[in-house]
Amino acid sequence: MKIAVLGYGVIGRGVVEICLTKKEIELVKIFDRKEKFDKQLIDLFTDNIDEILNDDSIELIVEVLGGYDFAKRIAIDAITHHKHFVTANKEVVAKDIDELSFLARQNCVAFCYEASVGGTIPIVKNLKALTLVNEITKITGILNGTTNYILSRMKENFSFEDALLDAKQKGFAESNPSFDLEGFDMMRKIAILSDLAWNTKIDIKQIKHVPVTEVKKYNLKKISKEKKTLKYICEATKIDQEIHLSVQLVALENDDLLSHINDEYNAVIIETKPAGKFVFVGKGAGSLPTAAAIVGDIYDILHQRVLDVYYNKNLYKIQ
Amino acid sequence: MKIAVLGYGVIGRGVVEICLTKKEIELVKIFDRKEKFDKQLIDLFTDNIDEILNDDSIELIVEVLGGYDFAKRIAIDAITHHKHFVTANKEVVAKDIDELSFLARQNCVAFCYEASVGGTIPIVKNLKALTLVNEITKITGILNGTTNYILSRMKENFSFEDALLDAKQKGFAESNPSFDLEGFDMMRKIAILSDLAWNTKIDIKQIKHVPVTEVKKYNLKKISKEKKTLKYICEATKIDQEIHLSVQLVALENDDLLSHINDEYNAVIIETKPAGKFVFVGKGAGSLPTAAAIVGDIYDILHQRVLDVYYNKNLYKIQ
Repeated sequence: MKIAVLGYGVIGRGVVEICLTKKEIELVKIFDRKEKFDKQLIDLFTDNIDEILNDDSIELIVEVLGGYDFAKRIAIDAITHHKHFVTANKEVVAKDIDELSFLARQNCVAFCYEASVGGTIPIVKNLKALTLVNEITKITGILNGTTNYILSRMKENFSFEDALLDAKQKGFAESNPSFDLEGFDMMRKIAILSDLAWNTKIDIKQIKHVPVTEVKKYNLKKISKEKKTLKYICEATKIDQEIHLSVQLVALENDDLLSHINDEYNAVIIETKPAGKFVFVGKGAGSLPTAAAIVGDIYDILHQRVLDVYYNKNLYKIQ
Repeated sequence: MKIAVLGYGVIGRGVVEICLTKKEIELVKIFDRKEKFDKQLIDLFTDNIDEILNDDSIELIVEVLGGYDFAKRIAIDAITHHKHFVTANKEVVAKDIDELSFLARQNCVAFCYEASVGGTIPIVKNLKALTLVNEITKITGILNGTTNYILSRMKENFSFEDALLDAKQKGFAESNPSFDLEGFDMMRKIAILSDLAWNTKIDIKQIKHVPVTEVKKYNLKKISKEKKTLKYICEATKIDQEIHLSVQLVALENDDLLSHINDEYNAVIIETKPAGKFVFVGKGAGSLPTAAAIVGDIYDILHQRVLDVYYNKNLYKIQ
């Protein structure tokens, strides 16, 4: 399968590195400014997006550009050009999951976004599969690597400022981390999972939330003495027909599994009927781990394992 | 899709109960002794297996009979009659995974066994997907609900005998639990996962193991004071080209995630390159939870998401 990768930043380089080792995947174009080129890959680079969109031999596009407006336009263009679309872009997915999924079905292609929630954790695939058999009652998650890294360091007596600086130095926090610190990143992610679990569009503005900076109001030594750990957690619960969402600081008992999810790791707990509780844990950040989740989506498409694709290929054949 | 369920015991009843609520699945036969029939389902019961094997409208067979010889014969018969085969039978899967997978490929059908390892945890699907992109370096698991339940009670000061009795009363231990207590159940399961991870047939007899009854030699109060928890754990590590397997009692630090997997829960840790560490947790026992894992396999087949099926359906079309 011939593919193109849009964006040659930290994640894009990881995707390119993995794809070059896979014989089933043929990387034919990288969209980025020419000055970013890697000498060995120079022939693959282009800064003209139409060269990719209009190349009928390219079946799949990976978008790791980030940002909203341009990425959203490219998503629509790629899908309407009948190309499978794989993205790690939380902002586009959280805002437009329904619109892009519908457009993908109409165009008989897959729209995959595993890397947009929970880093390496294959939570989109697993949650979709669980909803086929079970009723989902509650979702709880540590879904932001930056804030979890900060709280892990603060448990070791770092100040908030030192912990944030350390996260930046280790590459786990962006130069402007306000999106993570304010809770908007986890609000988007719990909105995506709720949409999948209950097939309901979530208005992010309605989610109850506090910024992680509120940690400064807590006495962490006292919490530690009480055998508890403060964690920054998102929750979605379905009670009767209503979905209640929150992003909060919670002092968890030390025998709670989530109190042991440290550093850049993410975790999701899915509570179901009748199969009970599931926990999924994996790295929430890092170039190659995130890239591996993206390449996982490419393989899913390769194997037609994405439900929507399967349905549509059949429709396509019938027409 | 028309299906038949073989065995109307604890798990079989769960599978029937869930399938009757799903419009995509039409249950047309239940194989068991007539005296076991449920009044509302009487017309579905048969004790003649040929009635099921020779019914071309039945596309999929679920085997929840247990035992080895008859179950193995039925597996071969079902697959050679071109029926998809879903089983929870650890013994058949651990011994004959390669033979049955090959036979299924030859006959263009799926052979699925998610419920045979890790109870509700979708570990077969996830491990298969992870191996496509990553190299697996180590697998660690709590994969036996009975022994984990016993150790959880002993941490609360139950004697071994009282803990075993309690497990039996709660339905988490079989009347003859020697298979679980000796470690053979976990040896089979780690063998299945190793086969999937490294595509190598494991000789179960080569696995280093101790029975869980060795717990009597440990001073659990001392372990608890040292902030540790004794767990019965299976491990498989690939070092150079060799795979090292064991089933052992291990005193884990209390900040180890596995030390918090209690009662009938199972957990699997998969260590990979480059995506890092993954943890999967879910219920390891219970009628409806196990049945939900089996019905998950049925949906996978329904959606042709099983790799082998996809490949073979295409081959099938070409021929």
